[in-house]
Amino acid sequence: MRVKDVKKVVLAYSGGLDTSVILKWLQTTYRCEVVTFTADLGQGEELGPAREKARLLGIREENIFVDDLREEFVRDFVFPMFRANALYEGFYLLGTSIARPLIAKRQIEIAERTGADAVAHGATGKGNDQVRFELSYYALKPDVKVIAPWREWDLTSRTRLLEFAEAHQIPIAKDKRGEAPFSVDANLLHSSSEGKILEDPWVEPDEIVWQRTIRPEDAPDRPEEITVEFERGDPVAVNGERLSPAALLTRLNELGRRNGIGRLDLVENRFVGMKSRGCYETPGGTILHVAHRAIESITLDREAAHLKDGLMPKYAELVYYGFWFSPERRMLQALVDESQRSVTGTVRLKLYKGNVIVTGRRSPNSLYSMKHVTFEEDQGAYDQFDAQGFIRLNALRLRLAAMAGRKGGGL
Amino acid sequence: MRVKDVKKVVLAYSGGLDTSVILKWLQTTYRCEVVTFTADLGQGEELGPAREKARLLGIREENIFVDDLREEFVRDFVFPMFRANALYEGFYLLGTSIARPLIAKRQIEIAERTGADAVAHGATGKGNDQVRFELSYYALKPDVKVIAPWREWDLTSRTRLLEFAEAHQIPIAKDKRGEAPFSVDANLLHSSSEGKILEDPWVEPDEIVWQRTIRPEDAPDRPEEITVEFERGDPVAVNGERLSPAALLTRLNELGRRNGIGRLDLVENRFVGMKSRGCYETPGGTILHVAHRAIESITLDREAAHLKDGLMPKYAELVYYGFWFSPERRMLQALVDESQRSVTGTVRLKLYKGNVIVTGRRSPNSLYSMKHVTFEEDQGAYDQFDAQGFIRLNALRLRLAAMAGRKGGGL
Amino acid sequence: MRVKDVKKVVLAYSGGLDTSVILKWLQTTYRCEVVTFTADLGQGEELGPAREKARLLGIREENIFVDDLREEFVRDFVFPMFRANALYEGFYLLGTSIARPLIAKRQIEIAERTGADAVAHGATGKGNDQVRFELSYYALKPDVKVIAPWREWDLTSRTRLLEFAEAHQIPIAKDKRGEAPFSVDANLLHSSSEGKILEDPWVEPDEIVWQRTIRPEDAPDRPEEITVEFERGDPVAVNGERLSPAALLTRLNELGRRNGIGRLDLVENRFVGMKSRGCYETPGGTILHVAHRAIESITLDREAAHLKDGLMPKYAELVYYGFWFSPERRMLQALVDESQRSVTGTVRLKLYKGNVIVTGRRSPNSLYSMKHVTFEEDQGAYDQFDAQGFIRLNALRLRLAAMAGRKGGGL
Amino acid sequence: MRVKDVKKVVLAYSGGLDTSVILKWLQTTYRCEVVTFTADLGQGEELGPAREKARLLGIREENIFVDDLREEFVRDFVFPMFRANALYEGFYLLGTSIARPLIAKRQIEIAERTGADAVAHGATGKGNDQVRFELSYYALKPDVKVIAPWREWDLTSRTRLLEFAEAHQIPIAKDKRGEAPFSVDANLLHSSSEGKILEDPWVEPDEIVWQRTIRPEDAPDRPEEITVEFERGDPVAVNGERLSPAALLTRLNELGRRNGIGRLDLVENRFVGMKSRGCYETPGGTILHVAHRAIESITLDREAAHLKDGLMPKYAELVYYGFWFSPERRMLQALVDESQRSVTGTVRLKLYKGNVIVTGRRSPNSLYSMKHVTFEEDQGAYDQFDAQGFIRLNALRLRLAAMAGRKGGGL
Repeated sequence: MRVKDVKKVVLAYSGGLDTSVILKWLQTTYRCEVVTFTADLGQGEELGPAREKARLLGIREENIFVDDLREEFVRDFVFPMFRANALYEGFYLLGTSIARPLIAKRQIEIAERTGADAVAHGATGKGNDQVRFELSYYALKPDVKVIAPWREWDLTSRTRLLEFAEAHQIPIAKDKRGEAPFSVDANLLHSSSEGKILEDPWVEPDEIVWQRTIRPEDAPDRPEEITVEFERGDPVAVNGERLSPAALLTRLNELGRRNGIGRLDLVENRFVGMKSRGCYETPGGTILHVAHRAIESITLDREAAHLKDGLMPKYAELVYYGFWFSPERRMLQALVDESQRSVTGTVRLKLYKGNVIVTGRRSPNSLYSMKHVTFEEDQGAYDQFDAQGFIRLNALRLRLAAMAGRKGGGL
Repeated sequence: MRVKDVKKVVLAYSGGLDTSVILKWLQTTYRCEVVTFTADLGQGEELGPAREKARLLGIREENIFVDDLREEFVRDFVFPMFRANALYEGFYLLGTSIARPLIAKRQIEIAERTGADAVAHGATGKGNDQVRFELSYYALKPDVKVIAPWREWDLTSRTRLLEFAEAHQIPIAKDKRGEAPFSVDANLLHSSSEGKILEDPWVEPDEIVWQRTIRPEDAPDRPEEITVEFERGDPVAVNGERLSPAALLTRLNELGRRNGIGRLDLVENRFVGMKSRGCYETPGGTILHVAHRAIESITLDREAAHLKDGLMPKYAELVYYGFWFSPERRMLQALVDESQRSVTGTVRLKLYKGNVIVTGRRSPNSLYSMKHVTFEEDQGAYDQFDAQGFIRLNALRLRLAAMAGRKGGGL
Repeated sequence: MRVKDVKKVVLAYSGGLDTSVILKWLQTTYRCEVVTFTADLGQGEELGPAREKARLLGIREENIFVDDLREEFVRDFVFPMFRANALYEGFYLLGTSIARPLIAKRQIEIAERTGADAVAHGATGKGNDQVRFELSYYALKPDVKVIAPWREWDLTSRTRLLEFAEAHQIPIAKDKRGEAPFSVDANLLHSSSEGKILEDPWVEPDEIVWQRTIRPEDAPDRPEEITVEFERGDPVAVNGERLSPAALLTRLNELGRRNGIGRLDLVENRFVGMKSRGCYETPGGTILHVAHRAIESITLDREAAHLKDGLMPKYAELVYYGFWFSPERRMLQALVDESQRSVTGTVRLKLYKGNVIVTGRRSPNSLYSMKHVTFEEDQGAYDQFDAQGFIRLNALRLRLAAMAGRKGGGL
Repeated sequence: MRVKDVKKVVLAYSGGLDTSVILKWLQTTYRCEVVTFTADLGQGEELGPAREKARLLGIREENIFVDDLREEFVRDFVFPMFRANALYEGFYLLGTSIARPLIAKRQIEIAERTGADAVAHGATGKGNDQVRFELSYYALKPDVKVIAPWREWDLTSRTRLLEFAEAHQIPIAKDKRGEAPFSVDANLLHSSSEGKILEDPWVEPDEIVWQRTIRPEDAPDRPEEITVEFERGDPVAVNGERLSPAALLTRLNELGRRNGIGRLDLVENRFVGMKSRGCYETPGGTILHVAHRAIESITLDREAAHLKDGLMPKYAELVYYGFWFSPERRMLQALVDESQRSVTGTVRLKLYKGNVIVTGRRSPNSLYSMKHVTFEEDQGAYDQFDAQGFIRLNALRLRLAAMAGRKGGGL
């Protein structure tokens, strides 16, 4: 980005040291007006100080935006994704990935409202988040100018960053003097840690890495039983109490936290081409994932379920890579949402030292037919003789191939 | 099957009451010679009594076949399937499904050797196993005659079955007088239970259902740490000790058993069209699945892994439905096996009260590049500026669409 | 079906000899009331005689249903399918497959209205049509009784059929005395021929097989240029004239017919397990297929198009197998329909002796950006330097693998 | 690339004006040794002049490489791709895409042999070819330096390019003074044209664009009948004459050319994110594609064929994007190749004014069973009654859903 080109920039601003340095760097480098945007996505930090700090750094009142996006986050991003049972590379519940498009969307809305021509974020040039932010920016405002300070500036060491902060009178909290032993991202769905002491995938993560769940070993010795109710694919109540989306996820997080649920130590493949290691804690999301699959198990048709399962990795990849605001994600969402109309009912679960154990599922829309499946006399619900024709015609092509010399499925 | 058509039949014979009744029923109904085949697949029962009982029921010595198939089972069926990370409907490790094609294959081999024109099995007309047996039979010997007594006879109640047994002097063990509270299948990979007391999916399974693992609550209070080594996609050693396939799975089963690992209570969709509920215990397989994904996480290329993930549900479906001996399973296996050439290395795991926790992975073929991923100075291994072009061209189609009025991936 | 069980049956009745025999056979065998249903799907036959014949065979006036379903057929079945670009096994435009669910749906509606408990069709036990009819029946009325005379009766030779007809005073047209040299199905979308003289796939079909198109060799020596306009994925006008769905397809059929377009001689795989050979004529549909892909080529996003392409074979398989009324087809339709919102514009085509040649496409929603693609100076629309980063990050995983000894994508 | 970093570069050199300018520009800009590599891929140009011109521009004899790669091209690249029936976006036979990896591979081999540290190509910064070349380079030699002059230099207009040529005494052919009306790429598989006069997708291509086929209107008035024989998925003979791969494709090209076969005018989606319009001529390839599908139609199992069809778009995408040397392409190739073992036999075709019409197929491995498919008495090969059970169990899940209130596949 050429320096003279930018007039006003909306910065995704956390109030922390790094984005404060970015704020000041934008002002001094681009000599442009800076608008700060700070979102509450349930990361567990107060937003007041961010507002204060923005003021302190010279941002005008009308250029400071602070929003509580928790309900929108869970309702319009987390829940649609959970309808798809999305797991990236078999395990990852996409806690960071799913938050980025919402932040980007709000940044663009603020840019439109304040007449800003640029947006900026604090993600590095090696990670996925830069991609997620910027794909969303471009999809929503194709002519927007994007500033990614970490790819542009020369503050490439901690020392230089701190020097810049001091030179520009940015307050530095004592615990930020030294380098953090790893990097953290958090929101209502999860907390993730990566880098530094976590870089060697053969070394077990130190216990300090885990911030949102207690150790399974430290969890209660007795299982805790809960119920989760679903309507049309989304959870609506826990233990019989109806809750708003964000309140419900908060409740599940607490249940998961105290039972040591939702830790994941994963080596994954980044969109930018290298492998990285992340430690994730998704207590409520882990419970929700298991519960959602359980309610689907009795309400979803087999082929509907298998079709979803085959497309799930693609859906998860799209979210992980940052293509939330893309036609292909919307098309897959349409397919997924179409399947969820009857996914209504209740799941009972046991939480115990890291385990989420399904102990029951029931639904007014259940497709489970005790009459058909029973070992007992079924009064003609199912004619066992049908199985013979079913098998024989399923076998016909295999038999014809075997007769032609290709036994056992040989090709 | 017309009664007069069958000359000699090979029966999959367990030595239990049901298959003994089938044996006698075949003799009296089809008036044909019966060959019995009893396999040790690690179900945990002695085979001697089955031989004895076959003799007692009048089977000639040369018509009694008893085989230990454990090594072949694990090496040629279980391990290839685990290379694919196969999970049916998200969770089921396919313990019963994967055993059926081997039993069928051996039955057909014996039919060829003894000149038998028919085969018979003891699976019911409602389940998946009849399909798995018979598809395999037909694929291997397309002109074989298949007898499925449960679909044909009139011994449709326990009482009639026992009467038939008594009338034909088949010994009835005392504990077989009453009806079993549920039905069990077992082999070296797993034990499954279904039916009767398990038929209501809202009711939690009684503890007596679980036979192969202890309760997580009863497992040791301290985690047990183990290592599993892989070569080209298959496990070859546990805790540094090289073991044959069957011995290795046996070892993992014991480790899983005592740490309460591998229980699954699932409502699943049968190939014949109804939902059923199964309780599965796959202690060693559960450890193996997690370990295999962990070693793949550092040795498999991203797109190789994603391609596998997208096809896995199809592979699992094929195994579950009974299409092991099919061209499509062979084609998918070729794809999977091609990917496993570098899947070599060691995984360290913690086993704790039902949890399998990856704590480390390393490999001589690792694609994890600390140099590239590091938050530290990387000496030019990765040029952060490349990310800008990468993102901008990935965004181009989204920007063009947004300029054409379709913002945010609108269609 | 036990004979005494049926009270009233709705028969899909063409008025031809075979279904007339079925009608009488139903009356004499099941001793039940017969309701006839005759549909105009554009097969090119008058419906009046069918009504007459039904009367003649003793069907009461209120039990005779004759419906013109052409508009519904094209609007609700053909067009949705063409949105998916469905081709079975690479070539077949599914002309027969797509008609069956509509006939079945209407039969069930008539059964509900007349209080019939059964339905019957004239499809044989070897083909796909029996499956398509019956899956639709069961999906729409799960307790319906299905009668498939060709699978049940003993009129297994032409001679016996004619004898039955004579015995029951069913009029036999002269040309029906001898056996037809092949079997035909026709509707507004296509005409298909199979069987008898077509059974050897090495023998070229005789020209008499082709009924709906002239030979390419006999078509005009000059190309005919036409335009087709689309709105939201569906064609709405030909050569500038807005037409109803059925009128539009009729128009395209005439254009295709006279230019020798839409013949297909194919060996395909039936759902029941064997291969068969069919000769299809889909003149208008062939034009429509090419035109639809052409309008998509400028209006559909790349990933939207690729996602559709990857799922198309599954969609086509579902239609071919008879799963139109299934959740999985509905889910795929939701995905496809979501993609078609901007598929609006005009395609210009040349029709010439069997060829359909696209010569132009334009759209108010075009995503084709001359500014971006041009070889000329593009005024900064596209920064060629972005390509370097794009390529380098796409290559990163390949480079890391090559550094680890796996050159050229080796595994 | 920093100028001083390069010591020796291998240039993909056609001998034409553009790559001659590049050659000189590399010498003057990087002051490095240049190695030229010119390949005969069947583009229809003599290679002698390229050698001459390289000498003239001062390249030392040992640094001039001229190779006839036609057999390798067809055998190891074209044929494997045709086994997959690859079509990009429904129509494009990937003629340009498939040639790039081979050129890149040979360049890298020459770099290894001559100790060069860099490679260069003449593709622009907007197209797919740069990606295909460079992904292949990096996959084969991860530390190679890549020079893409069109992305780097300032010779951005025709005028400046000619000035540079004149200033460096590069001979300019008369017809190169003016700008070509479109850009051409050619090899044994196809010829492609794009750009300039082709940029408006509403305008029909001028006849001068087509160079390798005659107009269908000008083709003979009588069909030409040919046969193509296949062994294990690859063509081996035409009209009974066994031919080497390149000779066979050359023969098919001539047959296609004179019958006006293989023209395609397509708007497609580039990997770099924009749509472009290409005019392709693939005369022999078009015949081969149709013939290959025809021989598969009688030799390939249904599920094998459907699995291939579902993955084909992914395979084609990989080739189009440039991922030939990738693990995922190799995995798909393994799957495809596994399926081709029995794809042996003969196809008879009619070529007529742009049409390729299958008129017969036969094979020693045929799975087409006249006995099973016949309308005549089949002597018990197929029991029509099996169809009832087959349908009823396929319908079971639909019936259960309908009973639960979800009629017609409702969700």
